[in-house]
Amino acid sequence: MSFSTPPKTRPGSLLSLSRRAIGVPPSPIRKLVDDATAAKKRGTKVYHLNIGQPDVPTPPQFFEALRNFKEPVLAYGHSKGHTDLLEAWSGYYARKGLDVLPSQIQITVGGSEALWFALILICDPGDNVVVSEPFYTNYFSLAMAVGVQLHPVAADPALGYPLPSRRDLEAAIDDRTKGIMICSPNNPTGTVLTRDEMATVVQIAEEHDLFILSDEVYREFCYEDTHISIWQYPQAGDRAILLDSVSKRFSACGARIGALISRNTSIMDGALRLGQARLCTATVEQIASAKLMDLDEDYYAALALEYKGRRDLMCRRLAEIPGVRFEKPAGAFYLMATLPIDDSDRFCRWMLTDFAHAGQTVMMAPGSGFYATPGRGASEVRIAYVLEQPELDKAMTVLGAGLAAYPGRR
Amino acid sequence: MSFSTPPKTRPGSLLSLSRRAIGVPPSPIRKLVDDATAAKKRGTKVYHLNIGQPDVPTPPQFFEALRNFKEPVLAYGHSKGHTDLLEAWSGYYARKGLDVLPSQIQITVGGSEALWFALILICDPGDNVVVSEPFYTNYFSLAMAVGVQLHPVAADPALGYPLPSRRDLEAAIDDRTKGIMICSPNNPTGTVLTRDEMATVVQIAEEHDLFILSDEVYREFCYEDTHISIWQYPQAGDRAILLDSVSKRFSACGARIGALISRNTSIMDGALRLGQARLCTATVEQIASAKLMDLDEDYYAALALEYKGRRDLMCRRLAEIPGVRFEKPAGAFYLMATLPIDDSDRFCRWMLTDFAHAGQTVMMAPGSGFYATPGRGASEVRIAYVLEQPELDKAMTVLGAGLAAYPGRR
Repeated sequence: MSFSTPPKTRPGSLLSLSRRAIGVPPSPIRKLVDDATAAKKRGTKVYHLNIGQPDVPTPPQFFEALRNFKEPVLAYGHSKGHTDLLEAWSGYYARKGLDVLPSQIQITVGGSEALWFALILICDPGDNVVVSEPFYTNYFSLAMAVGVQLHPVAADPALGYPLPSRRDLEAAIDDRTKGIMICSPNNPTGTVLTRDEMATVVQIAEEHDLFILSDEVYREFCYEDTHISIWQYPQAGDRAILLDSVSKRFSACGARIGALISRNTSIMDGALRLGQARLCTATVEQIASAKLMDLDEDYYAALALEYKGRRDLMCRRLAEIPGVRFEKPAGAFYLMATLPIDDSDRFCRWMLTDFAHAGQTVMMAPGSGFYATPGRGASEVRIAYVLEQPELDKAMTVLGAGLAAYPGRR
Repeated sequence: MSFSTPPKTRPGSLLSLSRRAIGVPPSPIRKLVDDATAAKKRGTKVYHLNIGQPDVPTPPQFFEALRNFKEPVLAYGHSKGHTDLLEAWSGYYARKGLDVLPSQIQITVGGSEALWFALILICDPGDNVVVSEPFYTNYFSLAMAVGVQLHPVAADPALGYPLPSRRDLEAAIDDRTKGIMICSPNNPTGTVLTRDEMATVVQIAEEHDLFILSDEVYREFCYEDTHISIWQYPQAGDRAILLDSVSKRFSACGARIGALISRNTSIMDGALRLGQARLCTATVEQIASAKLMDLDEDYYAALALEYKGRRDLMCRRLAEIPGVRFEKPAGAFYLMATLPIDDSDRFCRWMLTDFAHAGQTVMMAPGSGFYATPGRGASEVRIAYVLEQPELDKAMTVLGAGLAAYPGRR
């Protein structure tokens, strides 16, 4: 035929991923997994300080509940959450001095879905949320997936990453800003917000008419002062959205049970409609998680004592390594350290691919993954102290040897 | 002071929900729950034909696996999915004659998250997907939440809701259309796509360079012909995204385990990055679901026989009710019926609030919730035949009496 056939592919389409899907980064916490696997295959022992996976046993009440599940049909549950869990979670808050009604709780698939719901509820595509950086890396991924932008405001490493100044935070607010997001105790910095800092957040939100997203999944991991919750600010009323999870405090990361909590009835109604859209969270895991909510203060005290000991050891050993800078964090089980290196992505990979000290190495999360601003975090790493003290002690020896041997040392 | 203080609230902001959150509708399947609860409190027996919750027991292998879980720490799993489950699911497909590699599977939180991931992966906010209507109501909710539009194309009730004509489907495609979505066997219509219809979908996708999202969670519920999967079209290659779930075939709706399957490595890479953003799905539920994948064909044959009997009874009894119109569906466990009524929302509510026949009533899902086009579905209801035959038989008697007594009868 002398005339051409029409093209089968529309120009510009090319069956590509969406721009937002391309923009979701690989997890900086998990992206070195293949290198770690290869190191282990070579016989190298890898200390996993890269991921916030606690090593303490999940309380036995959880597994008892699994074993005791006797329904013949594993049916859908209520979209809001299992009644037992809603009531138990409300009871947990009461013991923490926080007056939260079951109706103010929406059960979610981990804290991740709670944040996802919150972003969808307050932001249309193109809207944004202000957050101090470094921040938990999945804030960025989850926001990107639903078309929400993060407006990062740098926290100062030299001061131990406190809340940025009011002026800096306000400079990041524009006419599409819908919320300000905080995480205390903080992942990845371990920073615990003070009463003054919390008050500043609430004031900024009131002044600029913003929602407050408060990630409090590390509530019990406070080693200096008691935790301050956004729920303690009744004047934040309809602005406050609390994000929570059973993962860390109950060492139950694999349960995937979290919650979104608010006094705002529109938010709770919207959260329920989003909940209905995905039907429910895992039925048995909810029933089992309800059993964890009754644990008494002794449990949390022992937990905090264990991690405080680890933190103290970590900080003591880290301070002995030449060129390493950090401030002792007050909470969570992470710290960000500034290392004498050219690039933390390169260093963390090198530790797995090229280095071993007495047959051992350390896996850490490169700092760049916790920043939205390009170029930031290049000399920082996040270290999760989720191993017992003798292991942490050995890991710090290995890290010191690694830093001494690293060709890109500065 | 003589000058006014600046306003505390930015004009137009008013701390409201996002437009998309407002646009997520309450579940039409679940929105009458309070009315049903009130009816039960009055002593009325309610036949639940409103929700696709099978009543057949979950296979005991699932619960055995729950009881046998012996890890001391309920840890995060791989973001892609537990290796046992990926391999077992691949084995399941092999027994169905579908050659799916574990690497082509991403485990998700039910089929819901699989669809959510697929929409995010192929669509930026404002993009759209073409789908025949009526469709599973949560397609709309999940799309709305992530800023994706559905372009509905009406399927004809009088013909039993077959795939709309190629001309009608193509008329709904515009320059922001990224995919065409099918569901076979269909929720809510029970329609099973024929070989010709599947070929048409593939041709349209090739011609217009679209992805194909194929929801096949009811694969085994085919009562006339064998199921045709999108996976059987290798020429669809990188276009095809299969959405699947353990919920219906294993009566394990509360497990929240699903999967997104594709030969497209970009899609699988993007799905993994989305998976990392929310860490993992429930660990124990994955291990238990893996045990279900080994069930042999006898299990599925018995399941299909059970539901075929129910369908036949339902259709026979429904055909006896004056003014009711429907075509016998070939699959799933739903049918859409056109009733002699003014408004199905009003009728379904009235059945719960104002009607009882010998102390019994029937809960159904109003048709409007399965349409994106305003006004459509007003005389249709979705009926899920998820009860045993004697119960269904009584429910149909009650429905007949309700239609005879309904003040809004037409």
